[in-house]
Amino acid sequence: MTASFDRLQQVLRRLPGLGYRSAERIALYLSVEHPEKSPELAQALAEASEKIGRCAVCGNMADKPGDGSQPLCDICANPVREASLVCVVESVPDLLAIEKSGAYRGVFHVLHGRLSPVKGVGPVQLNLASLSERIASGKVTELILALSSDVESEATCHYIQDEVVKGRVKLSRIGFGLPSGTLIGYADATTLRSALDSRKGL
Amino acid sequence: MTASFDRLQQVLRRLPGLGYRSAERIALYLSVEHPEKSPELAQALAEASEKIGRCAVCGNMADKPGDGSQPLCDICANPVREASLVCVVESVPDLLAIEKSGAYRGVFHVLHGRLSPVKGVGPVQLNLASLSERIASGKVTELILALSSDVESEATCHYIQDEVVKGRVKLSRIGFGLPSGTLIGYADATTLRSALDSRKGL
Repeated sequence: MTASFDRLQQVLRRLPGLGYRSAERIALYLSVEHPEKSPELAQALAEASEKIGRCAVCGNMADKPGDGSQPLCDICANPVREASLVCVVESVPDLLAIEKSGAYRGVFHVLHGRLSPVKGVGPVQLNLASLSERIASGKVTELILALSSDVESEATCHYIQDEVVKGRVKLSRIGFGLPSGTLIGYADATTLRSALDSRKGL
Repeated sequence: MTASFDRLQQVLRRLPGLGYRSAERIALYLSVEHPEKSPELAQALAEASEKIGRCAVCGNMADKPGDGSQPLCDICANPVREASLVCVVESVPDLLAIEKSGAYRGVFHVLHGRLSPVKGVGPVQLNLASLSERIASGKVTELILALSSDVESEATCHYIQDEVVKGRVKLSRIGFGLPSGTLIGYADATTLRSALDSRKGL
C-alpha cells in the first residue's frame, strides 16, 4: 500500500505461524489503527535483544544480570529444583513444553540443536562441552535424554551416551508410546511398535 | 521464563489474531532461535511509525514525502483512477478488501470510524469535513457508500446523505444480499431479506 507498510508486512510474514492475512492484519493494527502500540513492541524487542542471553550452567535463556556476572536461568537459580537430576533437551521450546507439563522437578541442559552431518552440525556446535563439565563436577547423578525418535536425535543420544557420559552417571531416555487420549486404531505403526516395546508389567 | 522474554510475549499477545501459543512461538523465534531477525522487525516498526501518515485527500494511509509536502496515497496519486467516483469506507482494512477484489476503479474516502454516540464518536471525530470539501470542489460526481448494515453504519450513511451530501452529487450504497457461493439454506434471515429486497429483474 505504501513502501513502509509493505516492508512491515513482509517482515511480519516471515515470523513463524503468520501468513499473508495475519501479517496484514497486524501491520494495519500497528501502523493505521493503533500506531501508539508500535513503540511498545519496538521497546520489548530491543529489551529482549539486549538482555536475553544463555544460562552459563544449562544453556536455557536467561536475562543478563546488570552487574556483568554470568547469566543464570530461573530453573538453575531455584534451590527447590533437584540439581542432581538433569534432563537434556534439544531446544528452549522443548524445555518449555516439559516445564508446562509440571511433571519434572529436576534441572535441564539445552543442546541448542542435534547432530546433523548433513547440516554441518557436529558435537562442537552443540552445548556438549559444558554437559561434560557438569558431569565431571560430580554434582549430577542422573541424566534423562528427552530427545525425539528421528534419526538425528537418535544419533545425538548415542553420541551423548558413548562420548559424553561414558558410564559416569545413570542415564535414561524418555519413554515412547501411545500419546494420552489417542485411539489405538488411529496410531501409526512406529508409535505402536514403541508402545509395545515399552510395555510395563501389571 | 525471563522478565524480558515474558514482556515481549505479553506485548505480542495483544496483537490481533495472536493467542498465547502463537505469541510464545514468535517470542521464542525472535529472542532465542533467530535473535538476528529482531532488529529487522524493530526497524520496520520504527520506519512505519515515522513515515506512515494519512493521505491529505482521502484519509487512506500514505507515506509522508521527504520534502515536507502533504502525503498523497497511491490511489489518489494514480492518474488512471476515476477521480470523480468516490467510494466511502469506514477503515483502511475495508479499503484494502475492496482494492483486492479488483472490482473498483474509482477513488476512496476513509472515514476512520462510524457514528457511535455510545462510544463518543460524533461527526467531528470522523473524516467528514474533507469529504464535504471534496464534494464542494465539484470534482466528484458520484459517491458510493460502502458501509456495513449494522445500526451504527446505517446511522453514518443517513448522516452523510442528509448532512454532508445534501443532494449535491449522485449517491448510492453497495448492495446487500447472498454472498457468492453461499447456499440459501444456510443464509441468515437478515441476509435473505436483503437479498429479496435487492432483487433484479431478468
